[in-house]
Amino acid sequence: MGLLELFLETGNLKRLRRIGWLLHGVPNPESIADHSFRTALITLFLADELRERGVVINVERALKIAILHDLGEARITDVPLPAQRYLDKTAGERRALKELFEGIGKAGEYLRFFDEYVDGSTPEGRLVRFADKLEMLIQACEYEKAGFTGLDEFWDAVEDTKANEFYPQFRGLVEELVSLRKHNC
Amino acid sequence: MGLLELFLETGNLKRLRRIGWLLHGVPNPESIADHSFRTALITLFLADELRERGVVINVERALKIAILHDLGEARITDVPLPAQRYLDKTAGERRALKELFEGIGKAGEYLRFFDEYVDGSTPEGRLVRFADKLEMLIQACEYEKAGFTGLDEFWDAVEDTKANEFYPQFRGLVEELVSLRKHNC
Amino acid sequence: MGLLELFLETGNLKRLRRIGWLLHGVPNPESIADHSFRTALITLFLADELRERGVVINVERALKIAILHDLGEARITDVPLPAQRYLDKTAGERRALKELFEGIGKAGEYLRFFDEYVDGSTPEGRLVRFADKLEMLIQACEYEKAGFTGLDEFWDAVEDTKANEFYPQFRGLVEELVSLRKHNC
Amino acid sequence: MGLLELFLETGNLKRLRRIGWLLHGVPNPESIADHSFRTALITLFLADELRERGVVINVERALKIAILHDLGEARITDVPLPAQRYLDKTAGERRALKELFEGIGKAGEYLRFFDEYVDGSTPEGRLVRFADKLEMLIQACEYEKAGFTGLDEFWDAVEDTKANEFYPQFRGLVEELVSLRKHNC
Amino acid sequence: MGLLELFLETGNLKRLRRIGWLLHGVPNPESIADHSFRTALITLFLADELRERGVVINVERALKIAILHDLGEARITDVPLPAQRYLDKTAGERRALKELFEGIGKAGEYLRFFDEYVDGSTPEGRLVRFADKLEMLIQACEYEKAGFTGLDEFWDAVEDTKANEFYPQFRGLVEELVSLRKHNC
Amino acid sequence: MGLLELFLETGNLKRLRRIGWLLHGVPNPESIADHSFRTALITLFLADELRERGVVINVERALKIAILHDLGEARITDVPLPAQRYLDKTAGERRALKELFEGIGKAGEYLRFFDEYVDGSTPEGRLVRFADKLEMLIQACEYEKAGFTGLDEFWDAVEDTKANEFYPQFRGLVEELVSLRKHNC
Repeated sequence: MGLLELFLETGNLKRLRRIGWLLHGVPNPESIADHSFRTALITLFLADELRERGVVINVERALKIAILHDLGEARITDVPLPAQRYLDKTAGERRALKELFEGIGKAGEYLRFFDEYVDGSTPEGRLVRFADKLEMLIQACEYEKAGFTGLDEFWDAVEDTKANEFYPQFRGLVEELVSLRKHNC
Repeated sequence: MGLLELFLETGNLKRLRRIGWLLHGVPNPESIADHSFRTALITLFLADELRERGVVINVERALKIAILHDLGEARITDVPLPAQRYLDKTAGERRALKELFEGIGKAGEYLRFFDEYVDGSTPEGRLVRFADKLEMLIQACEYEKAGFTGLDEFWDAVEDTKANEFYPQFRGLVEELVSLRKHNC
Repeated sequence: MGLLELFLETGNLKRLRRIGWLLHGVPNPESIADHSFRTALITLFLADELRERGVVINVERALKIAILHDLGEARITDVPLPAQRYLDKTAGERRALKELFEGIGKAGEYLRFFDEYVDGSTPEGRLVRFADKLEMLIQACEYEKAGFTGLDEFWDAVEDTKANEFYPQFRGLVEELVSLRKHNC
Repeated sequence: MGLLELFLETGNLKRLRRIGWLLHGVPNPESIADHSFRTALITLFLADELRERGVVINVERALKIAILHDLGEARITDVPLPAQRYLDKTAGERRALKELFEGIGKAGEYLRFFDEYVDGSTPEGRLVRFADKLEMLIQACEYEKAGFTGLDEFWDAVEDTKANEFYPQFRGLVEELVSLRKHNC
Repeated sequence: MGLLELFLETGNLKRLRRIGWLLHGVPNPESIADHSFRTALITLFLADELRERGVVINVERALKIAILHDLGEARITDVPLPAQRYLDKTAGERRALKELFEGIGKAGEYLRFFDEYVDGSTPEGRLVRFADKLEMLIQACEYEKAGFTGLDEFWDAVEDTKANEFYPQFRGLVEELVSLRKHNC
Repeated sequence: MGLLELFLETGNLKRLRRIGWLLHGVPNPESIADHSFRTALITLFLADELRERGVVINVERALKIAILHDLGEARITDVPLPAQRYLDKTAGERRALKELFEGIGKAGEYLRFFDEYVDGSTPEGRLVRFADKLEMLIQACEYEKAGFTGLDEFWDAVEDTKANEFYPQFRGLVEELVSLRKHNC
């Protein structure tokens, strides 16, 4: 793969819809790229905020993890949670990423970013995990505000944020969102 | 699972788009249910035709295989060909189907239909395999007629039809389609 | 018409949306093919169930009726209920079907399937009528679950199912659905 | 019907797509209201132009005919040309319009506008017929410019414009469009 | 610009969605042309009604203003209310219209129609302002009926209708709509 | 504004389509967020590559500029090139951004990122300008590959990339893309 091929294949993330919403009846929902974009933007503001508060965090690394964390889906497509009971998503995604990065400089480092995200083995990986869940919760809130219903199960992710190392730092954000939901988002 | 739950989950096949077209830039392409429907309709006419010609074929069985052959995708979603290099689709689909049929009368028989389709171990299974590919080729022709391009790789399925036991019987259909394509479908 | 032309025209059922939902504000609703597919799948399970219970039913015939019952709409398009006050849908649909089947083997039999469906003159025709209404009710439930409202009039079809010969056999399914609706589907 | 009910039902023209394009594979094509709008706008400029050239034309009447000419489709939906072989569109549309206008002031006059359009019995009716066809041709050109193909049959309407009383006045427009088409619109 | 170029550019109004709805989560909402169409239709009935009641109103002029009032958006696109805090929409729209009408007969008159609409400097301009707001309120009602929520701010336009010279004449329509909304539209 | 409000408003970038494609007849084109996402991803790989080659570049800064460069459009929406003749986009966007960042830590720095992008006053700003144009060219290539036509004017951006400081470094990428286009992308 050269860089251009990689950029072209990234286009799949624009074409693929996030299937969880689709299965719940949201017509023409957000793309994977839409989700990745706001995840990266959230990561940006949270990482800067952490650094302001004296937390040691590598912002560049965090942003890269956020941008790359769903790139493997350009090959394996969005495999939603219920389908993961039948398909080994993480293993497939990693293999796909490995091939995608073949021949690209620093391929090993980029693949490690994915591992850090999946394993939560670095603060940056864990921060993106937090941003990823927060992003989905905000999206759920927006769909509910527009009138879509039956999305309760997405809110289980609130528990995921609570289990995250950075929850104490951003507890206010999550609580504000949960409270907003009570007033129809 | 009761029958109602099964019928409700089948609704996913209406909501899920066939991802192969999507990745090639067709906006809002056919659903899995769309594809399954025409596959069943093609099976109906081909099976009746075969019987007319004296071929021993169980039409009821063929229709059931056609209707059920993609039902597992209600759980695992449409895993397109390139993604199958990274995900074991067939195994996942079978597990999903098994759970879907749990508690339903004749579950074993329905699961066998899927196996016959995948393995091509019965004439009926092989006929649906033929109908499934023919359906996709017809759809490719229709998208090309409408102006979509870059769909060459879908036409590789012509070779699949040629390898099928029923190709000699329906060679005319395939050749007519290939010739139609040369005149812009 | 040859078979290929017939299969190509069937493609219209994928492209045409069910207009009833559209007029009630559901964006990009199911296609006619989507509806026909689940109707056929429901027919499959109900027919098998009836046979298990000792009811004499020709499953092959029932499946064929289900697959073909809306095929005439490939030519006349989906004429929704309110429009049928001004347009003679059934007559037009029958004429369209007759032309569609011209030159196809067993055309007379296929046309009879349509009559059996419209007139409910055979058990198989009546079963597909039941499946057709049940399918629509399930779809209404799914749209309501997703947040769409104003769909009350679709639920009038519950009465149609009650008037059907097979209601006593599948009363549980209908009641379960109606009860589900009370809990937001 | 009161006026508010009439305005509400007019909303159907926004929700209904022009089915001719849809059947030719254009995804999510223009609505009936989209078409009616540009037909009215074209009528405006052509009518003013005619008046400038000394042709006696009632511009107000022409505009009203243009705005109302497809209103009956709010009830009977868009019945595309091929379907009209099986359904008596004009009769149905007229009956629908008659009911729509019931209880509205000047109902008789509004219904006469429809007749003038259908029969081409007044210059204003004929002008809107011309504008209606020109609008469709322009839309065909735009879809072809965007890459859609297989739309040849829509261009048969060029002959309709040629048969129209106002063709000599606006021959330049039609010829310019046909020439534009030769350069990919 | 010649007339054909003008008609072609008008096509943008079909392609552009009304962004206010989009930002509130309505997927694939009405086009600008959809809105303009019903605004013109409402204007037609209200203007005729006024004339019946003895109000001096130039119906032709009113219809023309209604048809042309959003034409400038073919160039500047739909700039929704919140964006107008940052962009001078009216000035831009007028400049765009001026260029669009260049070389067209009666350009000055058409531009004056826009000014009458913006300034409300004639009864016809004010009537279209009333129709424009009423159209949006009706659309809001339809989206709410379909299940969309969070559209409260659109109903602020009720106040705009109340401030309009023609409110006393059509107070019944607005009140009926507001009351309808209380019963889920 | 707090962070949650900012994240919620960012959602507009998912809902808004890139209007340039829409006006050229691409149905349901990419969102602004889609575009911003791939721009950020391209920036990531190009910035890393530059650093490998010994160019002094602040990768963190470049990524932040890429993520934030279109954020103001959450308020002013996507104002396409032709509309910018009538609307002062940059001034409006800056004012919108300023208000969006109000009350957010480091607001001044974030606003400077926007200025660096607009003015090209830093290497990081110029790199994102390059990535932004390259992203659009790749998207044009993908739409052309799918069959869309009439997109020639988008390829004028090739000249913009040539005028960019980093063109010599990534000339190969641009030339490869232009050559790919000659073979139908």
